Amino acid sequence: MQHTSPLAALRSLLKERELDGMLIPRADAHQSEYCAPFDAKLEFISGFDGSAGLALILADRALLFVDGRYQVQAHQQVNLSEFEIHHLHDEPIHLWMRENLPSGQRIAFEPMLIVNNQYEQLRTSGCDLVAVNDDPINKIWTERPAAPRGAIHPMPVEISGESTASKCARVAEALTREGVDYLALTLPDNIAWLLNVRGSDIAMSPVPLSFALIKNDGAVEWFVDEAKLQQLDSGLLDSLKTHSADAFLPRCKQLAAGKRFLLDGDNTPVAVRFAVEQGGGEIEWLADPVTLMKANKNSVELEGYRSSHVEDGAAWVNFLAWLSHEVPLREAAGNPITELEAQEKQLTFRQQCENFWEQSFGTISAAASNAAMCHYHSAPETNFAITSKEFYLNDSGGQYYNGTTDATRTLNFGQLDGQRRLHYTAVLKGFLSLISLQFPQGTQGHQLDAFARRPLWELGLDYDHGTGHGVGHCLLIHENPHRMAKKVNPWPMLPGNVLTIEPGYYLAGSHGIRIENQVEVVASRPGFCKFASLTLIPIDLSAVDLSLLSEQDIAWLDDYHQQVRETLSPLVSSDARPWLIEATAPVRAQRA
Amino acid sequence: MQHTSPLAALRSLLKERELDGMLIPRADAHQSEYCAPFDAKLEFISGFDGSAGLALILADRALLFVDGRYQVQAHQQVNLSEFEIHHLHDEPIHLWMRENLPSGQRIAFEPMLIVNNQYEQLRTSGCDLVAVNDDPINKIWTERPAAPRGAIHPMPVEISGESTASKCARVAEALTREGVDYLALTLPDNIAWLLNVRGSDIAMSPVPLSFALIKNDGAVEWFVDEAKLQQLDSGLLDSLKTHSADAFLPRCKQLAAGKRFLLDGDNTPVAVRFAVEQGGGEIEWLADPVTLMKANKNSVELEGYRSSHVEDGAAWVNFLAWLSHEVPLREAAGNPITELEAQEKQLTFRQQCENFWEQSFGTISAAASNAAMCHYHSAPETNFAITSKEFYLNDSGGQYYNGTTDATRTLNFGQLDGQRRLHYTAVLKGFLSLISLQFPQGTQGHQLDAFARRPLWELGLDYDHGTGHGVGHCLLIHENPHRMAKKVNPWPMLPGNVLTIEPGYYLAGSHGIRIENQVEVVASRPGFCKFASLTLIPIDLSAVDLSLLSEQDIAWLDDYHQQVRETLSPLVSSDARPWLIEATAPVRAQRA
Repeated sequence: MQHTSPLAALRSLLKERELDGMLIPRADAHQSEYCAPFDAKLEFISGFDGSAGLALILADRALLFVDGRYQVQAHQQVNLSEFEIHHLHDEPIHLWMRENLPSGQRIAFEPMLIVNNQYEQLRTSGCDLVAVNDDPINKIWTERPAAPRGAIHPMPVEISGESTASKCARVAEALTREGVDYLALTLPDNIAWLLNVRGSDIAMSPVPLSFALIKNDGAVEWFVDEAKLQQLDSGLLDSLKTHSADAFLPRCKQLAAGKRFLLDGDNTPVAVRFAVEQGGGEIEWLADPVTLMKANKNSVELEGYRSSHVEDGAAWVNFLAWLSHEVPLREAAGNPITELEAQEKQLTFRQQCENFWEQSFGTISAAASNAAMCHYHSAPETNFAITSKEFYLNDSGGQYYNGTTDATRTLNFGQLDGQRRLHYTAVLKGFLSLISLQFPQGTQGHQLDAFARRPLWELGLDYDHGTGHGVGHCLLIHENPHRMAKKVNPWPMLPGNVLTIEPGYYLAGSHGIRIENQVEVVASRPGFCKFASLTLIPIDLSAVDLSLLSEQDIAWLDDYHQQVRETLSPLVSSDARPWLIEATAPVRAQRA
Repeated sequence: MQHTSPLAALRSLLKERELDGMLIPRADAHQSEYCAPFDAKLEFISGFDGSAGLALILADRALLFVDGRYQVQAHQQVNLSEFEIHHLHDEPIHLWMRENLPSGQRIAFEPMLIVNNQYEQLRTSGCDLVAVNDDPINKIWTERPAAPRGAIHPMPVEISGESTASKCARVAEALTREGVDYLALTLPDNIAWLLNVRGSDIAMSPVPLSFALIKNDGAVEWFVDEAKLQQLDSGLLDSLKTHSADAFLPRCKQLAAGKRFLLDGDNTPVAVRFAVEQGGGEIEWLADPVTLMKANKNSVELEGYRSSHVEDGAAWVNFLAWLSHEVPLREAAGNPITELEAQEKQLTFRQQCENFWEQSFGTISAAASNAAMCHYHSAPETNFAITSKEFYLNDSGGQYYNGTTDATRTLNFGQLDGQRRLHYTAVLKGFLSLISLQFPQGTQGHQLDAFARRPLWELGLDYDHGTGHGVGHCLLIHENPHRMAKKVNPWPMLPGNVLTIEPGYYLAGSHGIRIENQVEVVASRPGFCKFASLTLIPIDLSAVDLSLLSEQDIAWLDDYHQQVRETLSPLVSSDARPWLIEATAPVRAQRA
């Protein structure tokens, strides 16, 4: 029998196994934001390649659940005669299943791809969830890319600021305090932080895919493909026990009898729970203590961030000076600079930095209406010209050996209309309101988010994304647990946390604006904190209605630009220096 | 045997019954904020009369748990040789029990006084919780006041805006939607709203203590002391079945077999759960739908609020004009006005209002350092003089036949020092920042709270209370579920909600400042809301550093004062009119 599509092949296999359907999430076993091609099962079955989604394949229907960001993309990428598109949040899949499927239907899922809290929610669907360890997709995906085997590098303690032994001792202490024997680690950045290593399994994501167990005496077992370990010195490898990644679940089961495991329900595959339970262990569901330890950066890490931002700032200035010079000339010559050309040029400037390693995420280089799509990435077929008539938005960053950067600037090279100036001014005012705030130590992100939105709210406008996210130290660009957004985030903000501040405004089909600095939380008055900018890049004021800025806004801008100018002047090219001086000129003088 | 104290008597009874201890909460069966003397069991046993607290009486120790507000008061009121004082939040009682008591200790509690969620938390203590229906306190409290029997009055539909039948139909629809048979109502304000009645069991709390059951067909059974019903017409009484209050639990048990009950775990006594479970019923734990229906005021209720605020505003102006005139004269004469004299005078002005019924809560009339205690109430022994050298804070309100008011003004009658002016200006700026906000419909209170705090945060200061609470319509002064505070409040704010905005600042031993308006949420731009002030009382600007106000601050103040002046001028006494004109003069002119 010949199958014409992966979907038909899968249905046939499900039928053989007497399964009524199967859940296929966009996920790997590590809940990675960016997945390796090897793990792109959802794309294989549906064609949809967004960063979040979940398919439910039934005998006679196939449903793809994606969030608001991906509705348009899903409709473009998916064969709509095969798939219905549903909204992941407005119509949660467990409720859809409860309302639309006869109870007791046998629905398969791969338990390494579904985390415990998701599983518990799916259990309320009334269906019979069947964990399949021999995922049928593995059988039908004949052209599947190989599993990644990126080399793992050591992260010197001179850069991480704390030895693996010290980190393990602190984790062991936390486990003892909680009365548990083992912590199972499945998040690659938590493992990378703990073991002072960095990986290369996924482009622009310097974390190794692996698993680990740490005992309450600090002993570590690391479950990782041996091929990845060639560049590690024996110091680390002698200090722990290594196993193949495949040995992780069996080992959990083997160790479990009579033991208590700390598992984080938000990110631990439910397969780990099953293994511990089958082995006779108990589970304590708690937030992984490593997540918070990692977010509280030490002074060496903070110094690394600051240093990498100086290098990155100089590369930005060289790029922006070049762009400001070239855009009008090339436009006049009828051969305008494009989004792709700009991002390539920007990369060459970053590559001139001594400590630059790779980009920290895919650059968003977006002109005019392309910038209205928050998650746009340029491609030859969408590659707009950068002109004096429209905003150009650039959101990019670098992994440096000692730190990670992430910044956005929206640029004006000509005379924009009143509406665009009003929107840009509102975004800037929101940015300034939040970044200049003093707040009680321990304040939570959702308490501060609205400061960045208020000037837009005054116009009856808003933006549909968070205001800021944590940034890993030479780790993931979106690091948990801190976040400033409308959604409640229970984690207290303390000195040493590193986040972004990035309000924006997007008018579909017209323009997009975002201004983003990376900041560290620093102590100020007793019991209070402030944000200190790590990002050192001039903020374009040419599209601002200066009459709408407050004295406090202007004081912040002038102080910031003075710091940018004084820090970067000696480091930028001589071509760029005059542009830097002009771009950082005090506003107070201009407005007076 | 003679007992020297209630505590000894209680211990003896507990011993007889083989109980190791007993929990005594400051609570009645309705989770009332203000309890009748009949329900003051905690005060009887401990001497502590604050509005929140919980005692644990053991054979050899007695512990009183109170929150931060009441630490000082508890130490003053309680015999410290008998009771240890603990912190209700820093050291939750279930954790104290878990850590300090051998597991399996038999700890008694009265199940009408403990709500389900509290019970579930106490269950994690490791103790054996023993529900006692014949509370030993009832035996030893020989001088116990009588249970309240306040008359219940009808609330005309011309004032409530919706008939009982219509409200019951809406509740029935909600119950049907949730697939439940019954809703058990134990909150007095929810019952008062549903049945369009008001009560008089507790001073300044116009709600009748009673219970009710509503079925998913809209039929109501009301469990209420018959003595309270004399003033009700037969229309209401014929439309429902009445029982004595004592019949509530037996009836729940009797009806339960095969039925589903909706109970709100936050406020339903666990005794109701026991009754339903014993009767063979099932429970759906959900927020009581009446709580939200009641918070979304209809247009008649809103019109009533507005009208009552006009009356209340005129009474305030008459009072403030009198106070402003008298304070310096009486101070100069060596016979200054006191806090108690001021609040008595204020009451006489309110009593002149046509629709005034009673005070909506105990007035806070506090001069100088007395105002630094948020919950201060004047008494002869603390009764400070009101002078030109210190702030005077007045937080008061009225129950009118058509609405409820709650406002605070802090007043300056002389020349205050720079620190007091700075603090007052910061509180005012926080107040203005929040009250002038436009925000997306459905925004939650915790997202907005920080706007009221920011000017204080800039000085490294803060206040330790919420920023705003819901206000009932001729019901409770603190109405659930809406609240603006640091604590997460999940309820979306929508047009028709009525709240307060009341930032403050308190420096112990020195001064206290609070500025409070009651507001309604109104629709503005598409998808957005604003606050519209219900309160119409001039805000004292004599202690403000005007140079610190923004243009937006001044525009709001001038608009507000114009509205106050134009609305109240015709209504205030001729003595007060010149003061009103001066107190509402535009700032713009003064600053220019």
